[in-house]
Amino acid sequence: MRLSRYFLPILRDAPKEAEIVSHRLMLRAGMIRQEAAGIYAWLPLGLRVLDKISSIVREEQDRAGAIECLMPTIQLADLWRESGRYDAYGEEMLRIKDRHEREMLYGPTNEEMITEIFRAGVRSYKDLPKNLYHIQWKFRDERRPRFGVMRSREFLMKDAYSFDLDQAGARTSYNRMFVAYLRTFARLGLKSIPMRADTGPIGGDLSHEFIILAKTGESEVYCHKDYLDFETPPETVNFDDAAELQSYFDKWTSLYAATDEMHEKAEFEAISEDKRVSARGIEVGHIFYFGTKYSLPMKALVTGPDGKDTPVHMGSYGIGPSRLAAAIIEAGHDDSGIVWPEAVAPFRVGLVNLKPGDAAVDAACEDLYAKLEAAGVDVLYDDTDERPGSKFATMDLIGLPWRLVVGPKGLASGQVELKRRSGGAAEALSPEQAVATILG
Amino acid sequence: MRLSRYFLPILRDAPKEAEIVSHRLMLRAGMIRQEAAGIYAWLPLGLRVLDKISSIVREEQDRAGAIECLMPTIQLADLWRESGRYDAYGEEMLRIKDRHEREMLYGPTNEEMITEIFRAGVRSYKDLPKNLYHIQWKFRDERRPRFGVMRSREFLMKDAYSFDLDQAGARTSYNRMFVAYLRTFARLGLKSIPMRADTGPIGGDLSHEFIILAKTGESEVYCHKDYLDFETPPETVNFDDAAELQSYFDKWTSLYAATDEMHEKAEFEAISEDKRVSARGIEVGHIFYFGTKYSLPMKALVTGPDGKDTPVHMGSYGIGPSRLAAAIIEAGHDDSGIVWPEAVAPFRVGLVNLKPGDAAVDAACEDLYAKLEAAGVDVLYDDTDERPGSKFATMDLIGLPWRLVVGPKGLASGQVELKRRSGGAAEALSPEQAVATILG
Repeated sequence: MRLSRYFLPILRDAPKEAEIVSHRLMLRAGMIRQEAAGIYAWLPLGLRVLDKISSIVREEQDRAGAIECLMPTIQLADLWRESGRYDAYGEEMLRIKDRHEREMLYGPTNEEMITEIFRAGVRSYKDLPKNLYHIQWKFRDERRPRFGVMRSREFLMKDAYSFDLDQAGARTSYNRMFVAYLRTFARLGLKSIPMRADTGPIGGDLSHEFIILAKTGESEVYCHKDYLDFETPPETVNFDDAAELQSYFDKWTSLYAATDEMHEKAEFEAISEDKRVSARGIEVGHIFYFGTKYSLPMKALVTGPDGKDTPVHMGSYGIGPSRLAAAIIEAGHDDSGIVWPEAVAPFRVGLVNLKPGDAAVDAACEDLYAKLEAAGVDVLYDDTDERPGSKFATMDLIGLPWRLVVGPKGLASGQVELKRRSGGAAEALSPEQAVATILG
Repeated sequence: MRLSRYFLPILRDAPKEAEIVSHRLMLRAGMIRQEAAGIYAWLPLGLRVLDKISSIVREEQDRAGAIECLMPTIQLADLWRESGRYDAYGEEMLRIKDRHEREMLYGPTNEEMITEIFRAGVRSYKDLPKNLYHIQWKFRDERRPRFGVMRSREFLMKDAYSFDLDQAGARTSYNRMFVAYLRTFARLGLKSIPMRADTGPIGGDLSHEFIILAKTGESEVYCHKDYLDFETPPETVNFDDAAELQSYFDKWTSLYAATDEMHEKAEFEAISEDKRVSARGIEVGHIFYFGTKYSLPMKALVTGPDGKDTPVHMGSYGIGPSRLAAAIIEAGHDDSGIVWPEAVAPFRVGLVNLKPGDAAVDAACEDLYAKLEAAGVDVLYDDTDERPGSKFATMDLIGLPWRLVVGPKGLASGQVELKRRSGGAAEALSPEQAVATILG
């Protein structure tokens, strides 16, 4: 993409309303724009990140056997009356009346609707297990939205719902998502730790939050240090093997880890002092097993092997891609701006032309741009008339993994300059060497 | 995908509420499920089609130089007061109050919001032209929603917005989208004809609807027969060449074509009788040039070459991927079900195992499944215990381009059966020949 044709409204100054670093950086880097309190437009650079995050989430859901669908944002109030949550949900639910005065709402979550879809389509235990998910915008009318897309009212969520004949099956479905989540966050460049969690208004018996550690995290968390060195379950996990899944679950829950809400001081202090981690954390995923909480009142029944109808055991599994974009920045930034992990960077390379109009520099840039794009590398090519200092500041701010600079002086001796955003010195290389280094 | 693990709730009987064939077939094929009047969930099979349509739309928008962003679904009423449309829009606008009694709405379109984003980010004519688009859910509270996703309340729309310094520039931007739309519909397997259109509540001076002909179309349309043989602009169109774009526009508007609303009988009857086409049509795209209708009241100004501030000239360009899914079915079906074009088929091949449990048949199916998937072909593998007749009916109903059948009898003589959904006899082939034929 040529910057001259792109839409990248950089802000030089930190917007004063932004309280946390990810919010400041996302606004300054032209990733998002606030359209109302807690409601954001994703500008082109931000959307590229959001889409990359969603793709990784989707790949790992698919790998674990979950099936994608897409439910609408607007739901009927009557559906929520079936579960009893319509009145219970409180002011966070955005309630709407249509032109015929029918009571509707903007979905804050989808347990009721997916249960309705399931019960209409599945009748027999032979069709189980099933896990259906979607990636859709949700709305929760927070009283005081803040922290940008970290706690916005309209937010993107991947929510998956599992259906099993019994608790043992549901446990395996839970473990599938548990493993898929560990893999998802690792691929996003994050170190996540599952922590036993309160089940909150969604209810249920078994629940984990996936927390990443970040200095600017929203809450205090406590865990055993060894978690930081645990290996992520490999791509070759057999998601049909209940015992293998359970072994990953057992390992990743073997040591102490708890959010503030669930913290037990005595248990934590039983850990040897050098292994205690007390830090700030950000919740990036949340999984629940809640048994027949919805299937019973909503009559989501299957015929079991004994010929009798039985309510299915369910779980739900959430990840917020919009919140993750902010969390990844909280975990990866410096004083100059964002430092994206390769997997979600909006572009992999920022190509800087130091003297547009100089025939040799233009030609060298065009050649590099074409070669990298042809090799499947996303390049943001700064072909604008801005001053070099301003171009460098923009590249640092938007945090692309590689910065490739072409100027008349270096080019006279056949060299361009390549630098990693994550650190290390700039290297003078031939254009060919630079391309080879980027392609790795 | 193994059907035994998929979620494909086929209905054997035509639902009585569905008035048009696409609605009946989408419900029967387990593509969609109604969640409220005019509000649908996209079940896994439907979502695959919707995503493929959106991908083609996106590719052609990108090719034409439009830049993707993503605006939120919920908007502030005050934003619409700036353009004067908040009061004018009428009952189709879903109006919402949040917990603080602020007036909001579910966006039916995005002219106001994109104008707000543009004016905050662009100051100079040097940054023009710009075209920003998004693919996002919209809501129009139709008084009487019907025809399934053809006229739903919550619907997916790709809406693009162009910004130019003057009318001449805006005209070129309009032509870019005009050409992109011709290419988009052709890639979706549709024959589209641009027709001069009334500009309706969005307003403006120049507008075309893109209409496809289908017996079950919603409205009467009239055009010159030669349009049906016009060549689609090629992939190599130079979207920077205003003259080339204008030549495609001129060609595709050279003959008579009009919707009922714009029809001029005398002009139509001046065409020689054998060249007159009077048929039913479905609107699948709509483009508008509306000058400074929004930029003037909303003060979206750029500094021109003369140093003076001037309101930008705008256009908007809509395609509904959710409506297109239905339109493609209206244009492609028979008595047995849907006949998907290859480009948007949810899977390319339906692999039917006639005798699950038979070791040789299972092995042959597994081998074909693995080979096709490895070659990048999406396969829906029916490994269930259903009767053969039911399996064939399902495959015909869901309309995958190829049906590949493996049974014990054929296999004994080394043969499987391959058939195209679009017509022609079943062929007995070796498994290797069948794969080679599918891979083309």
